[in-house]
Parts: sequence; C-alpha cells; structure tokens
Amino acid sequence: MTAAHDNRPRGVFAAALTPLQDDLSPDIGATIGHYRWLLDEGCDGIVCLGTTGEANSFSLDERLALLDALGATDLPSKLVVGTGCCAVADTVRLSKKAMEIGAAGVLVLPPFYYKGPSDEGLYAAYAETIERIGDPALKLYIYHFPKMTAIDMGLELIGRLIAAYPDNVVGLKNSSGDWDSISSMIEAFPGFDVFAGTEEFLLPTLRLGGPGCMSATVNLLASQSAEVYAKWQDDGADALQEHLTALRRTISRAAPIPSMKAMMARQTGTAAWTKVRPPLVAIDAAQTERLAAELAGQGLELAAAA
Amino acid sequence: MTAAHDNRPRGVFAAALTPLQDDLSPDIGATIGHYRWLLDEGCDGIVCLGTTGEANSFSLDERLALLDALGATDLPSKLVVGTGCCAVADTVRLSKKAMEIGAAGVLVLPPFYYKGPSDEGLYAAYAETIERIGDPALKLYIYHFPKMTAIDMGLELIGRLIAAYPDNVVGLKNSSGDWDSISSMIEAFPGFDVFAGTEEFLLPTLRLGGPGCMSATVNLLASQSAEVYAKWQDDGADALQEHLTALRRTISRAAPIPSMKAMMARQTGTAAWTKVRPPLVAIDAAQTERLAAELAGQGLELAAAA
Repeated sequence: MTAAHDNRPRGVFAAALTPLQDDLSPDIGATIGHYRWLLDEGCDGIVCLGTTGEANSFSLDERLALLDALGATDLPSKLVVGTGCCAVADTVRLSKKAMEIGAAGVLVLPPFYYKGPSDEGLYAAYAETIERIGDPALKLYIYHFPKMTAIDMGLELIGRLIAAYPDNVVGLKNSSGDWDSISSMIEAFPGFDVFAGTEEFLLPTLRLGGPGCMSATVNLLASQSAEVYAKWQDDGADALQEHLTALRRTISRAAPIPSMKAMMARQTGTAAWTKVRPPLVAIDAAQTERLAAELAGQGLELAAAA
Repeated sequence: MTAAHDNRPRGVFAAALTPLQDDLSPDIGATIGHYRWLLDEGCDGIVCLGTTGEANSFSLDERLALLDALGATDLPSKLVVGTGCCAVADTVRLSKKAMEIGAAGVLVLPPFYYKGPSDEGLYAAYAETIERIGDPALKLYIYHFPKMTAIDMGLELIGRLIAAYPDNVVGLKNSSGDWDSISSMIEAFPGFDVFAGTEEFLLPTLRLGGPGCMSATVNLLASQSAEVYAKWQDDGADALQEHLTALRRTISRAAPIPSMKAMMARQTGTAAWTKVRPPLVAIDAAQTERLAAELAGQGLELAAAA
C-alpha cells in the first residue's frame, strides 16, 4: 500500500446487526452498544446499515436517525455506512449524512430494482451519485452482492469508475462468496481496496494484498477473525483460518441474520435481539439451541446469559 | 362479478411513464398531462408510480410530492398507485398518502431486497403493511413481478392473504408474462381481481372472468387496448387482440421504458420526454426512428411532432 492510503480502513469489519425495539424500529442505544462490543472484541471497524443490518428494511428517516445518533458518539471514524438505495436521490441523502457525521466511507449498492441494467446505466447511477454528493472527501466503496442485487459489477465497469473518480471510488466489498471474483478484483486494481465479503477468505485476501474482510458472521466471530488478521503472517495462520471458516459455515448455513440475532439474544439475555423485520423471520428456541450446541462442539464459546 | 365489486377498477390500465425535468426529477405537470391523455385515449385507469413509471428510482419525497399534486386534481379515483418499497415503513407512508388523496387502490410489491424470503416472511411483510395502514377502505393489489423482484408470490401465500384480509387484499397485477401463471390465479380465486400485466393477454383474461390488464406498453397502445376491451365479446375480437399483441411485442422487444419515452418525445416534440433515470439509459435517435418505422409498418400511427 502507498502512503496515500494509510488512513483508509483495513482489517476486520463486522457487517453489524441492528437490534430492534418492540415496534420493529431500530433500538439505537442497543445498536451503538453492539458496535462498541464488536470493536472491543477486536474488530477494526463496523459496516453500519448494510445487508446484515437490515438497512433496506428501514425507512430513510429511520436510517438518518441512526446516523444522527452515531454522529453524537466517538464511533464515526470506525464506520463504513451502507447507503445504497434504489433511488439515487436517497443514496445521495444518506451518503451526505454519513459524510457529515465523519464516517470513514460509504458502501453503495448499485440501484437494484431494475434487472438487467447495462454497464452504461450502472456507470451513470454511480456517477450521478458521486456528482450529487459533490464532496472531494467522499470515500465510496462499491457493494458487489450479486446474490441480492442480481447485478454483476464487472471489471470493466469498476475500472471505468476508478478512472473517473480516483479519489472517491476507493474500494469494494465483494460479497459474491466466490474467490475467483475476489482475487480477480484485487489483482486487477492495485491500490483499490477490495474487501472479501466473508472472513472465509480473510487470509487469502491479505496474502494477495487486499485490506481485509467485511462480513456478517463477524458479529459472532469478531475475536476469531481479529486473531487471523493479527497473525496472518505467522506459521499458525492457516489453522486459525481453517477453524474460522468452519465456524462461519455453521452460522451461515441457514438464515444467518435471524440465527445471529437469536445467538445474541441468548448471549445477552435481551429478548429484543430476536426481533427481525419482515421479510426475515426469527428462528425458534429449538433451532437456537441446536445452533449453539453445534458451535460449542466446534469450540465457539457463546455463553447463555445467566 | 358480484355486486360488491361494482366499484372496483376494471378494464385497461396504463402503467404510466413519468416524464422528467432536466435535473431528472418528475415533471409533475407533464405527468398529469400524460395521465389525462391516456384516459382520453380510452384507458379506464392509470397505474401511477409503477415499474414503468420508474417509481423505484424516485425518492420517497419525490413520490409523495407527485401524489400531493395528483390529490389536487380530479384524477385520484382513476389511479392505482404503486407503493411497494423494500421497507414496510415506506410502503405504509406512500399507501396512506395514496388513500388520503382518494386513489382507487395501491399496488404493492413484496419487499424485494432480500432474496429467497419464506412465504412466512412475505406474509408478515404484507400483514404488517396492511395493519400499519389500518384503513378499512384500503384496496390493495399484490404486485407479482418475478423478473424484477426474483420473488414468487405463490397461490398458497396469496390465498392466505385474501383469507386474512378479504376486504383489503382485492386483486393482483401479474407481470410474469406467463399465461399459465395468470390463468391459474384467476381460476384459483373467484372475485379476486387478477389483472394481466400485459395487454397481450387482455382477451384471454377477460374470457376467463378477469378484470383487464395493467401494462407498460399501453402508454403507446391505449386506444388499441381499449378497443379490444370494448369489443371483447364481438366476432372480430381475436383479430384485434392479435394486432395488439404484435404491436406490444415490437415495443417491448428491447428497453421498453426508454423506447416508449423516446416515442412520446417524437410524438409530442418535447425533449424532456427522452430523459430516464439511471440505471435506465435513453435510446438514441436512430433507434427511435427504427422503432417508429417498424411500428408504422404494423399500422401504428405515431406521428412525429410538426
């Protein structure tokens, strides 16, 4: 990495869950508490209001309110904020707010309602977003998540955006789950920060010169992920990664967001943690205990609240 | 149809285009003018802010502003308003506004960001939406558009929603483009108004007892569609439908929204009509003239502005 990138986010980012109140609105206090706990556990930063945070199930006002609350804390420099909406105008508004509170960057989905968009149309959407934000300090991470968006952000398109906005289009979260896709992006764009969307590829990403991972399952695997990041050049790194990968696969096998919320509820004794917004559905107590037992069998200590 | 349904929308609905200003915001005056023109051409009603209207590329505020403006006209009773967002809270806000201005109904997509939702989660999303709107007068049309949402609204789920909210869940727009899907829904739920999402199936829909169609290409084929609707029990109905279908297929072959906007621009001499929001991309003059020539060859008179 060149010196110019020294201030950029690196390491392990949890794509953080959002605990909810009884009326399914974000529990802002508990959300901030969760972010702090993840940082204490060893995360280098937080992806706030991403897919795992159920951001697209919150209204614009709910998202703005959470960002305002975060703006009153010391956390913003640790945050990459998910701001990508179907409508560029909404993406711009959220991104401006994220910049205003001092977030480290914004993570921007392509507009994801219309399927089969052309590269020309996707380029126009990002260009329009960046121009309307109009802030030279903008650090934008492209959010590549084809399973959710049904949109492929190809190398040519990414290269064109980097070339047009070299100071603003600084990285990408690759949630394809496909190492070939992740590695091809890291190799294609030196100095462009391609985060693996799963800690399963944390070690290979670092070895290829990538900055780290931004991942949902880090909500439960923060310290284990942080250990891989801290020791990635050590002899035991492969064994640590292998264990981390096995745990990740157990958690993500079915309904990862409700499962992780259920585990957080079990661990903290806070029933509010079980709540999810439709179309997600909470898992039940039996499923929760089964998952806890399986993770315990793999050596993951997630104690139930007393 | 039973007497209870006498006031419900029937016939030919244009899923209306939204002309844009230079800054890509909705041109409200031109939009209202377009709705009036479509009604003059023979449409029975308008789907306002649906997929074709680029609704999901507008911010919530832009959509609310258009609805407020429509509320000051005599049009609302002719409108079925697209209100489905990723976030239930936004869907509720738009739906309440649509009810407040006196719209005939709302057309509600399932929450479409999270892929692979369970029927339980989709049911919860619609139930939560209906409960939060909390208006006994609500007329909700489910918007089934698997190509855009990647979500299948199955018969069991639809039946469950009708059973739970018989006065509110009154119909569906089936934009699958698949006659088997449309006919199976019409047959499964007598008295439930399943609109074909294309005028290609207008005649078979009417013959099976369905209420009509809600379709994008009606923006250019309003009078031809209205003629099929008016004469559906006449001897010549099949020939009219065949001609309508051929025209529809020509328009929808590639990029239907930009193509129709280009044709409207050509017809009205209003350059603003060519504008589309990213990720859509406008078609060029050569493509426009080619389409106009092809439609003329099929007997569709779309005169260029003098």
